Amino acid sequence: MKKVKVAIIGASGYTGLELMKILINHPFFEIAYIATTEGGMKASDLHPSLLGVFEQDVYKADATQVAKVAELAFLALPHKAAMGFAKELLSLHVKVVDLSADYRLELEAYEKFYCEHEDKENLSSAVYGLPEINKEKIKQAKLVANPGCYPTASILGILPFLNYLKVDAPIFIDAKSGVSGAGKKPSLSAHFVTINENIFAYNPLMHRHEPEISEKLRLVSGQEFEVNFVPHLLPVSRGMLVSSYLQTNELINAKAILEDFYKEAKFVRIRENPVDIKSTAGTNFCDIFVTQKGKSLFVSSSIDNLLRGASSQAVVNANLMCGFEESAGIPILAYVP
Amino acid sequence: MKKVKVAIIGASGYTGLELMKILINHPFFEIAYIATTEGGMKASDLHPSLLGVFEQDVYKADATQVAKVAELAFLALPHKAAMGFAKELLSLHVKVVDLSADYRLELEAYEKFYCEHEDKENLSSAVYGLPEINKEKIKQAKLVANPGCYPTASILGILPFLNYLKVDAPIFIDAKSGVSGAGKKPSLSAHFVTINENIFAYNPLMHRHEPEISEKLRLVSGQEFEVNFVPHLLPVSRGMLVSSYLQTNELINAKAILEDFYKEAKFVRIRENPVDIKSTAGTNFCDIFVTQKGKSLFVSSSIDNLLRGASSQAVVNANLMCGFEESAGIPILAYVP
Amino acid sequence: MKKVKVAIIGASGYTGLELMKILINHPFFEIAYIATTEGGMKASDLHPSLLGVFEQDVYKADATQVAKVAELAFLALPHKAAMGFAKELLSLHVKVVDLSADYRLELEAYEKFYCEHEDKENLSSAVYGLPEINKEKIKQAKLVANPGCYPTASILGILPFLNYLKVDAPIFIDAKSGVSGAGKKPSLSAHFVTINENIFAYNPLMHRHEPEISEKLRLVSGQEFEVNFVPHLLPVSRGMLVSSYLQTNELINAKAILEDFYKEAKFVRIRENPVDIKSTAGTNFCDIFVTQKGKSLFVSSSIDNLLRGASSQAVVNANLMCGFEESAGIPILAYVP
Amino acid sequence: MKKVKVAIIGASGYTGLELMKILINHPFFEIAYIATTEGGMKASDLHPSLLGVFEQDVYKADATQVAKVAELAFLALPHKAAMGFAKELLSLHVKVVDLSADYRLELEAYEKFYCEHEDKENLSSAVYGLPEINKEKIKQAKLVANPGCYPTASILGILPFLNYLKVDAPIFIDAKSGVSGAGKKPSLSAHFVTINENIFAYNPLMHRHEPEISEKLRLVSGQEFEVNFVPHLLPVSRGMLVSSYLQTNELINAKAILEDFYKEAKFVRIRENPVDIKSTAGTNFCDIFVTQKGKSLFVSSSIDNLLRGASSQAVVNANLMCGFEESAGIPILAYVP
Repeated sequence: MKKVKVAIIGASGYTGLELMKILINHPFFEIAYIATTEGGMKASDLHPSLLGVFEQDVYKADATQVAKVAELAFLALPHKAAMGFAKELLSLHVKVVDLSADYRLELEAYEKFYCEHEDKENLSSAVYGLPEINKEKIKQAKLVANPGCYPTASILGILPFLNYLKVDAPIFIDAKSGVSGAGKKPSLSAHFVTINENIFAYNPLMHRHEPEISEKLRLVSGQEFEVNFVPHLLPVSRGMLVSSYLQTNELINAKAILEDFYKEAKFVRIRENPVDIKSTAGTNFCDIFVTQKGKSLFVSSSIDNLLRGASSQAVVNANLMCGFEESAGIPILAYVP
Repeated sequence: MKKVKVAIIGASGYTGLELMKILINHPFFEIAYIATTEGGMKASDLHPSLLGVFEQDVYKADATQVAKVAELAFLALPHKAAMGFAKELLSLHVKVVDLSADYRLELEAYEKFYCEHEDKENLSSAVYGLPEINKEKIKQAKLVANPGCYPTASILGILPFLNYLKVDAPIFIDAKSGVSGAGKKPSLSAHFVTINENIFAYNPLMHRHEPEISEKLRLVSGQEFEVNFVPHLLPVSRGMLVSSYLQTNELINAKAILEDFYKEAKFVRIRENPVDIKSTAGTNFCDIFVTQKGKSLFVSSSIDNLLRGASSQAVVNANLMCGFEESAGIPILAYVP
Repeated sequence: MKKVKVAIIGASGYTGLELMKILINHPFFEIAYIATTEGGMKASDLHPSLLGVFEQDVYKADATQVAKVAELAFLALPHKAAMGFAKELLSLHVKVVDLSADYRLELEAYEKFYCEHEDKENLSSAVYGLPEINKEKIKQAKLVANPGCYPTASILGILPFLNYLKVDAPIFIDAKSGVSGAGKKPSLSAHFVTINENIFAYNPLMHRHEPEISEKLRLVSGQEFEVNFVPHLLPVSRGMLVSSYLQTNELINAKAILEDFYKEAKFVRIRENPVDIKSTAGTNFCDIFVTQKGKSLFVSSSIDNLLRGASSQAVVNANLMCGFEESAGIPILAYVP
Repeated sequence: MKKVKVAIIGASGYTGLELMKILINHPFFEIAYIATTEGGMKASDLHPSLLGVFEQDVYKADATQVAKVAELAFLALPHKAAMGFAKELLSLHVKVVDLSADYRLELEAYEKFYCEHEDKENLSSAVYGLPEINKEKIKQAKLVANPGCYPTASILGILPFLNYLKVDAPIFIDAKSGVSGAGKKPSLSAHFVTINENIFAYNPLMHRHEPEISEKLRLVSGQEFEVNFVPHLLPVSRGMLVSSYLQTNELINAKAILEDFYKEAKFVRIRENPVDIKSTAGTNFCDIFVTQKGKSLFVSSSIDNLLRGASSQAVVNANLMCGFEESAGIPILAYVP
């Protein structure tokens, strides 16, 4: 079978690297084009671990060039930068999986929490790329907004219980992320000495992933929930653990509901014991554990923030958009021990 | 001034070590006796970092010997082992600060979550050693039950808001602890490879510190709250961060209430920004931050699990029991950077 | 093509897990049998990250059963336990890759540093499985002794310079290993609190990998070198960095010699900058850097202690023994970032 | 007794913080003045852990002001910046302990490895502040050049054996440092994700501490040694382990020589087992272990890079310069567990 040619725009960061690592061995995709803002080096100059493995040239990003060589492009760019490229690529009939926040939210919310939107037209037709809720739409999409890492883990944990939740009770989400989620750019808050042997919350009740979570819960359930979201930085490089604290209307069998809800899911695993982040690191799995005390639930969900929270979920979306099996080429072996 | 002689029973563990580190330089206490289950070595054999610093002999624990040389004893023993010693020491007129769980709970709760209690008499007169709620009682006490690490951080965070809480709304506490809290004993769950680059919950909604927290909140407020407590193990050696998610009856000014509540407290610091654990590691401080969204509160409290959560709080209690200034000899300089 | 069936004896440890992770996706091998000392569980009970990925039954190890279903067996057992199995398996015409120390050394050295050897016959025909020195012999071998992790990284770093070394000058090797190299068994020295934020040497100048290194250097060069080997434990889970300090007879161009020596090597990469361990973690690569000051050389070599230092090198050896391309199914994408 | 007033110039970095932590509780010194390049904040703004502990005003550095209020100044500034201040302070009769490299080397070496020297006059009279070799000179000094962290640990390990070393054999020093040694400034090489679960050499055989080590060994011994120095960055915040590989002329009893050499030293501890960095972290100790194989020695020395390698050694020097007991106010209790 002839492989589908794809482009990666934004190859210098961590999610760009993860995209390459997945696509290098993908059975149906072929990396035809890689770009950064600057261009003019090899992939192994950006990521020394690729020396001798993948040394393709990296270009200065150019949508016209992409359209000449690729049918689909992954955008691993900052928000705002992404929408410019997406708009142009779509006009050139290139499918787009956008890993930024640019097409994740409804217009009003986007402009409230980010900035003015410069591609309102495509925004309205973009599909939110969480396969567990939108698989059929993703298959038809030209533009998929790849979910944020926190929303992925949070929504997957809460989804099975949505119909059972007390609508007027707040949802509390205590999330913990590895530092790679904050990107590669040096800063005092990413300095080893700041993070090591430490933990702290940041942007509590004010993080931009909070509206993403509440909007999606509303769209799925038709109900408005108060979502209180607090992220923390962990002294680990990769991985994300999300603790959701929920209140149900009546006594339910949470474990049974959870298992039933995901019985067909390829990339959700239900755990008997509290989940950890090493068992999902390196994979596209979301592991979920639930326990309860009466009508109070504790849901613990774990993902690899760079994979299920970004790059491998993006490739799952690309698989679906191109008519391939959703699990084709998707990593399932964890970085353990 | 002549120093008060004290004993440390249980010197081989982490809290025993921390007791020694504080008491070596204490202005009013003198370590007169150190013991472990075995005895027969020097303190620096148990803890090599003490070489050349503190090399006192370590004896096989014997209450009669303690009574001959010391006025007050710190028990850094496992629960159950502690109550035997405490009973005997008290009968010999030695004051006791017990770092175990043996005298922390009311009888019924203790026997439900731990084991049969063998010293019911002293249990009923033991004082719960959280100075922020019991300072005057501690001053009169012969036996102080030093609080658990999780309850210390949790209660201090929730206390200022107790009168404002919705009584029928559950309290959710998401706690994160360094591994030293689990003790020095080797186990697969304390193995470096298990913990490093990882995080996971343990005993969710079933940890024995949950009844300790809810009992104390009830005793202070006269109200029964549903406490849902989930501890996590962090890949750090020391430190504890506790996130409490609360719901108030009406809109309050949480920050102002917090500041007012602790305006006289020596060892509670109110933070403008989310607290971290490195700023309290090495000290007896509890740092607290609060933020809110309407009637939902996020309280973040940080302590050193081995100090404010055990050994330095024990010495504060001993200070009070002996009529000294509560801050005498108590560490306040953090282990930063 | 029909796959060659293989067995893994000793599946509960870290190297057993890594063998499974490689062989699950191997193009020419199929895991036909997995065993531990006990048996009676699934692979995912031993290693929870395999849930939903690989759940094959695990048996109590039995050589006769192995011979019925497999052509080649990997022994991931402690030394001494390995030689019993190897002997029996070889007599049943099963090829063996032994990851223990049992067949690595000449008899005299083995018995001096380990214990009495109970399979002297096979010892004499075992091939030391470092492909860079023994590729042709490995292709013919029935029994391959997979090298130790430290010797792999040390020998690969020193080998290119062997002919240039001052014979009467000692070689100094300062090695640093992640904790997984010490195995999964709980111990105080593998306790998180012991290792975290720490580093220390162990068995300096007395480690059993020292005679393995010096024996192989002697066999290759025909010269006896004094090898001084000091291993250290690092606060990392996986990875190994070996610094070798060498003295040459005359001024050489170390970089050029190094590049030339490995110009055909599939799994050795020469670096322009000092190597790190994250760029080889997750792969079978050995990355090497050299610099010099006159006739003093500093060689820095990096491997994944569990892969190039154990399991992936074992599969390379199995590839060669079965006539496959040496790189078939061998991991080359690092666990970065 | 009236305390001696001191100034800290350069309070924003890690060594500035450590100076404050020591001097806050010093029995004979009082912090009279703190400065940074900018000034205009409190000490607890620079270092949040000081909130409620030490909130003194921080000024824009000004030598004239220093001279008005302090008898001695600690300079915790980058090299080059330091010499300007030192020169002016000395002319105003303020004693100086300079923590930078500016006065550590002889002129020629300094200008070769750093930059042009702008205070040659004071350079010639500066005393190298390693008390184990220069205690008497330090007592008379107006200007002490506080040693580098690597030279401190290296020289203390090698010193006892200097008279026994083969002069024509190279010395190899493999050093490992926590990241705080590289300072607080954000950079990709100090990014958590770069350092965590990693280790690598930097500036091998080219680090500027190499000439500092060889110069001091030459000055003490009268012999020229070839020093080959390779530093590595460890995934720890603080601590330094230095492995020195030495060759002696004849068979010596290294352990006995080491013990004898330091029998009077207050801040050197000889260890029976390989040293670790946690046992010295938080203290001014240098722990040393030696073992040998014939005439090859392995010396392992451990210090806290920020304390013995900078700030506490600076205070020891200040103690000596002011006629106080060398150990006054110097930390000896390690940051364990």
